[in-house]
Amino acid sequence: MGLSKATKELILKFQWEDFLSERTSRMKSSVIRELLKLTERPEIISFAGGLPAPDFFPIREFQEACNHILQTEGQMALQYSSTEGYRPLRQFLSDKMSKYSINVEPENIMMVNGSQQGLDLVGKLFINPFDCVLSSRPTYVGAIQAWNAYQANFCTVPLDADGMCVEEIPLLIEAGHKPKLVYVLPNFHNPAGTTLSLERRKRLVEIARQYDLIILEDDPYGELRFEGEDITPIFRLAPERTIYMSTFSKTLAPGIRLAWVVAPKPLIQRMIQAKQGADLHTGTFVQMIANDICQRGFLRRHVKDLISAYRERRNVMLDALTEHWPEGSSWTNPQGGLFLWAETPEEINTSDFFKKAIAANVAYVPGIAFYPNEEGGHNSMRLNFSYANPETINEGIYRLGHALKEAIAGK
Amino acid sequence: MGLSKATKELILKFQWEDFLSERTSRMKSSVIRELLKLTERPEIISFAGGLPAPDFFPIREFQEACNHILQTEGQMALQYSSTEGYRPLRQFLSDKMSKYSINVEPENIMMVNGSQQGLDLVGKLFINPFDCVLSSRPTYVGAIQAWNAYQANFCTVPLDADGMCVEEIPLLIEAGHKPKLVYVLPNFHNPAGTTLSLERRKRLVEIARQYDLIILEDDPYGELRFEGEDITPIFRLAPERTIYMSTFSKTLAPGIRLAWVVAPKPLIQRMIQAKQGADLHTGTFVQMIANDICQRGFLRRHVKDLISAYRERRNVMLDALTEHWPEGSSWTNPQGGLFLWAETPEEINTSDFFKKAIAANVAYVPGIAFYPNEEGGHNSMRLNFSYANPETINEGIYRLGHALKEAIAGK
Repeated sequence: MGLSKATKELILKFQWEDFLSERTSRMKSSVIRELLKLTERPEIISFAGGLPAPDFFPIREFQEACNHILQTEGQMALQYSSTEGYRPLRQFLSDKMSKYSINVEPENIMMVNGSQQGLDLVGKLFINPFDCVLSSRPTYVGAIQAWNAYQANFCTVPLDADGMCVEEIPLLIEAGHKPKLVYVLPNFHNPAGTTLSLERRKRLVEIARQYDLIILEDDPYGELRFEGEDITPIFRLAPERTIYMSTFSKTLAPGIRLAWVVAPKPLIQRMIQAKQGADLHTGTFVQMIANDICQRGFLRRHVKDLISAYRERRNVMLDALTEHWPEGSSWTNPQGGLFLWAETPEEINTSDFFKKAIAANVAYVPGIAFYPNEEGGHNSMRLNFSYANPETINEGIYRLGHALKEAIAGK
Repeated sequence: MGLSKATKELILKFQWEDFLSERTSRMKSSVIRELLKLTERPEIISFAGGLPAPDFFPIREFQEACNHILQTEGQMALQYSSTEGYRPLRQFLSDKMSKYSINVEPENIMMVNGSQQGLDLVGKLFINPFDCVLSSRPTYVGAIQAWNAYQANFCTVPLDADGMCVEEIPLLIEAGHKPKLVYVLPNFHNPAGTTLSLERRKRLVEIARQYDLIILEDDPYGELRFEGEDITPIFRLAPERTIYMSTFSKTLAPGIRLAWVVAPKPLIQRMIQAKQGADLHTGTFVQMIANDICQRGFLRRHVKDLISAYRERRNVMLDALTEHWPEGSSWTNPQGGLFLWAETPEEINTSDFFKKAIAANVAYVPGIAFYPNEEGGHNSMRLNFSYANPETINEGIYRLGHALKEAIAGK
């Protein structure tokens, strides 16, 4: 093209970076998602992702549902639909949640594109730049990512075997922190695998009422309980100030991106406004398919199968850790979900050790990725036990243990 | 429950509104989406929505694709996948765009959940509170909604038969406005139906280079051209500073929520970061289905059918307007797309007249909804001609014309 010299200079001078908003300074790619790329090599045993076992995906049920929906309601399934989501599915979910004594109506529920969108919309609705979000340390990396984009500040309390140490929240507040929102993963915490005890849930609610905090209860794994009894959801203890989220990603399939948010009706109206601007609505087609599968009563049977498979995989991982890992290591004992949290002896830095693990063809996520202010976890890692089969889990944990022992001996 | 009096008071005192972020003060429900609810009554002839004709949805092709994908790659289709999107589909799109001489690679493309998500992510990446976005008046209501959530200010230039009056942009800037981003709907503008001439595209690029602006080229309807020649996309004229978006919503189906963003690679990397935090990725299943349908060469044939159907519907609407509407009315003559823009005689206020239209069982969108600063359009409306069949279009335009004449006579 016959561009003038001046125009050519204007083109060369152009820099996207000059136009970016202030919030982009806090946005970065998730370490996990970058690692996942590394671990796509087929020879790698990956404990890194949070992937459900693909061999349990209900492919036949999806096929039946697709055919049924397209044959009987194809025009509706392919058309635009409402922002709040497909009403029969929201009705199904409100009925289902009564199992947990969460008595809500379809108007309390909005469908989203995976829980991650729920986190994003909560950020959009509540977080001003530099607002304080209170979370456990470690916490879910996707929440860190979602709320960094709204320039949140995180203040954190530690975790122990009973989950988030909620008793430390008043201490933080008395010390001058002003949290607005408490982010809680009550069941089979990602990444820690721990469950928040009933006593602590009650205490958290007391604290939230005393200091006027709102609570986000993120519960993607609650249905995948291997043993013990369900614990009362926080939403039930403090329905006035709690937003509850769950998902089909771990029970049906993540590739349809389908989750839901539960909240008081006036807040759902605000959520709908936020979602309209964000993407108009969640896919009609995938909502109708999920509803078709659910209405056949498939979900309950399927979750039972998943529980027994994942329980076995967790057991194999725990046994392998006991057998193969060096003295001075420790790990959590999750009663459900997809993850456990392991700590190596102090002298190991799991970010540095990652290269050695990859050399042994095993992958995990270094603990530091789950610390919002990168203030800990140097000798910890998240291990996923849902994706690999039992034999592979044993082999992978053996290899990691062997490499850890070598690294320690080499020091 | 045995709550103390003090606790009961804390619960009663709680107000979600106290916790909302500042940006929510600018968020409201789209007038269009609220109207759409009104117009769901089956007896209403609706020109209000932007709905494709459901009788043309390729239901059989969807069924074949669902079966094929689930049978051959079911485990992949239901699993998590990459944020940027399914590579074979991005390859297909980069090949397809070469038709428009947009020479891009799959790495220049990111899949999104409908163009609305593209608008949201552009807002997230570029708009600081009170940053100025330059658009036409009227402009797409979804862009207003997406960017109000980032507290954008809009400054606007008028439209005429050749599209956005770009020559007014330098005047606005010289008068002290400092736009950062120019939002352009080059082909068959929503809501106006007009197409930006090549001359104006070139002039816009000159202006953008001179004043260092970035351009968002939103092109959902470009393929639905009824007559005349394709006009060079702005992306081709100023690839260094243009973001291009298009969608499957108007060619395949909106219910799968599938669109794409095209931009220079470093910006796509930023987009990927923003999308990771927003919803991890676009559904694997719908991407693989769309790809399967596209790879069979179906899209090109299907678009031809849509063009001939929508051309007929536009013609019927134009003829009906000429025949039935009162003197002093005018309308645009779109060369493609889904909408035309009609102006009634000055004395009609289309927001007030809406009730009379609904009483006559016809719906449209009042023009004011498309004015970011609500500074005009009182006697205008957007009319959709893709959804209703030709007979219904004629009947609806007749009824509107009749009601308009009555309203004018009644004054």
